[in-house]
Amino acid sequence: MGFSFRDGYLTCDDIRIKDIQEKIGHSPFYLYSAKQIRENYAAYASALDSIPSVIAYSVKANGNVRLLSILEALRSWATLVSGNELRLSLAAGFDAKRLILNGNGKTREELTLAVKNGVMINVDSAFDLEHIAEVSQACGRTADVLLRINPGIDPAVHPYVSTGLRDSKFGVNRERIDGMLQRFKRAPSINLTGVHCHLGSMIERLGVFKEAMALIAGHFDRLKAQDFPVKYVNLGGGLGIDYTRRADSFPTPGDLIASIRDLLPGDATLIVEPGRSIMGNAGILVARVIGVKDAGEKRFIVIDASMAELIRPSIYGAYHEIAFIEPVGGEKKRFDVVGPICESGDFLGKSRELPTPPEGAGIVIYDTGAYGFAMSSNYNARMRPPEYLVDHGVLTQIRRAESFDDYMRQFETGRM
Amino acid sequence: MGFSFRDGYLTCDDIRIKDIQEKIGHSPFYLYSAKQIRENYAAYASALDSIPSVIAYSVKANGNVRLLSILEALRSWATLVSGNELRLSLAAGFDAKRLILNGNGKTREELTLAVKNGVMINVDSAFDLEHIAEVSQACGRTADVLLRINPGIDPAVHPYVSTGLRDSKFGVNRERIDGMLQRFKRAPSINLTGVHCHLGSMIERLGVFKEAMALIAGHFDRLKAQDFPVKYVNLGGGLGIDYTRRADSFPTPGDLIASIRDLLPGDATLIVEPGRSIMGNAGILVARVIGVKDAGEKRFIVIDASMAELIRPSIYGAYHEIAFIEPVGGEKKRFDVVGPICESGDFLGKSRELPTPPEGAGIVIYDTGAYGFAMSSNYNARMRPPEYLVDHGVLTQIRRAESFDDYMRQFETGRM
Repeated sequence: MGFSFRDGYLTCDDIRIKDIQEKIGHSPFYLYSAKQIRENYAAYASALDSIPSVIAYSVKANGNVRLLSILEALRSWATLVSGNELRLSLAAGFDAKRLILNGNGKTREELTLAVKNGVMINVDSAFDLEHIAEVSQACGRTADVLLRINPGIDPAVHPYVSTGLRDSKFGVNRERIDGMLQRFKRAPSINLTGVHCHLGSMIERLGVFKEAMALIAGHFDRLKAQDFPVKYVNLGGGLGIDYTRRADSFPTPGDLIASIRDLLPGDATLIVEPGRSIMGNAGILVARVIGVKDAGEKRFIVIDASMAELIRPSIYGAYHEIAFIEPVGGEKKRFDVVGPICESGDFLGKSRELPTPPEGAGIVIYDTGAYGFAMSSNYNARMRPPEYLVDHGVLTQIRRAESFDDYMRQFETGRM
Repeated sequence: MGFSFRDGYLTCDDIRIKDIQEKIGHSPFYLYSAKQIRENYAAYASALDSIPSVIAYSVKANGNVRLLSILEALRSWATLVSGNELRLSLAAGFDAKRLILNGNGKTREELTLAVKNGVMINVDSAFDLEHIAEVSQACGRTADVLLRINPGIDPAVHPYVSTGLRDSKFGVNRERIDGMLQRFKRAPSINLTGVHCHLGSMIERLGVFKEAMALIAGHFDRLKAQDFPVKYVNLGGGLGIDYTRRADSFPTPGDLIASIRDLLPGDATLIVEPGRSIMGNAGILVARVIGVKDAGEKRFIVIDASMAELIRPSIYGAYHEIAFIEPVGGEKKRFDVVGPICESGDFLGKSRELPTPPEGAGIVIYDTGAYGFAMSSNYNARMRPPEYLVDHGVLTQIRRAESFDDYMRQFETGRM
């Protein structure tokens, strides 16, 4: 595990998080374990060992350039959802041939950037196909693409992270695929090399992956029968992680791959696009206690992290495990752990049994490596926190704390 | 009105928004009407004309320094919820004597900044009081404070913006007030000058303001009877605005003040802290259509704005009126208006009857002046949009578009 307790102190590679907190002074901050990232990647690599396959890390989960570099060094590909994620990945050292651009609303500027760099593109809709055809022709380049199919499968997760329902904004519905294929045949600058689907996020039921795999394998075979130069079946991402940290069993990357491997067409290369299951448990948010408060029947631990740094509890009702990073001896009570933002949606955890902490106690919100910093804001004029990495026992700052002076520079503007 | 249609084009001070969109090139962008801000402020000022009173704009709704300057010039005070909002307000020209610092989790650093500048502070809890007492003593200064009372009133709004419920994290519960007052008497560096409460946000029912006013007026009188040097009753903010733009009647600032004026203690100065009702309808988010898509039984207009620029629909299920800024002749259909972000929570409006637009059509999301940019993020590595102001027919950029080069500078860090 990337983070574990020793003698009552949370550690990463044997370094106490409390020592890191005191050393850097700034609160809150995100901290990542390079070891955990590599272990998570290795779980996919090992499961896919005997299968022609590509692991394409989903950059939207966490786009810190230094973390991307770790994955690039492992020979990961990267899945992108914007032109800037493409730029970030190139900056991290990724070869453009190992990038896949996804998304339901790619702009022509983003498509041009992808086509010029030879990035593979997932075609999301009829209008997306037209734009790619026009852009690739204008660039005088051929675009390798996959067709994103809307599988019409319910992944049984929060509606916001469910992306493969029939009425979802993503992908091409089954009944429209034949019409799309006619258009592909009339697009000389487009090379249809496979099929893609993405069910959503936080998925626990392997049966839905199996159902999706059977579906896209069938489409792969149909495309092949129509002489498209297909090579890839892209199952997308979406494997959940155990945010409770207490589940008896939670599907691993190995379980996921085992459940679908027999359904893979013999001549296809499998692409998987994990994000959360690579980065989620490799990051923590570390904060300090400002004070403890009673109100009515409720008790609150007020900390110096908030929904500005971590919006998942607020927007998805997400659960993150919370603990103190150091021994805290106060009486155990049931607390809501809340931030200083002036709205009731600003909570990190509800109804948690924790010892009553003194002011200044260090506190950790676990499993915030994915969709943590990536969704952070400046709400209440809070500056974004710094990020740190522990790799082989060495602490490195991998993102600067946003400074108020930097922030003020946005306002240096003039009359048009 | 700050924004109105002329000859099929949305305008601001007679300037077509379409012309602005073409001139600045960048999409999406926020645009504000100085005229509308001044009208909204005047509605409060006029309603409060014969009452000793303070209008303290709630900076968290929109903290753009240039917009703050407009309010400062109107002699508004400002209500702050962080040290950075204090710094922003000073930068905008506010006198520190016209600032009020609010919040359930003020840090000692923030309190020190407030005390040194002579900023009034709303005391939120027992621990907050201890911190203020220690900080003011350490600074050798006296802090003027108001006691924030948890009114235990349900404002009948979204739970996230309901802040005065009995179990809320904000304010001091009624049964704890007497104990707190004893502590105030033993704090020579603290000057208890009144009472505060804040019910929440988006409130439509004036009865809840009336109930709160009666409550805090009673506490004001009790404090006075105990010889505290009370001067202020602070009713907070929270008046809603008509996001549908179609309501037959919606309470105005005039209605709000009329409903509570008879309850104001004769010798008290009333403070109100409006945010949304000053800034909400003075701002719009202007975007472009990327494409139109059918999926299952649903139709989508995909635009180049998203939950990264405006998270209110996603996090609160908030409704914002949406229209095209120019004549669009396509067939009227029912659409979801969605952004390009790779999750299903990325929508701006659901099930809206709109004409089918061509690619590139200009589209406006109304009433995004409050809690729009303020809650924006870089999700999917999207750069934050620029902001513009129209004042007396003159267009000014008031916030630069975030650039990818600026963004990359965050990663210029080193080993610790």
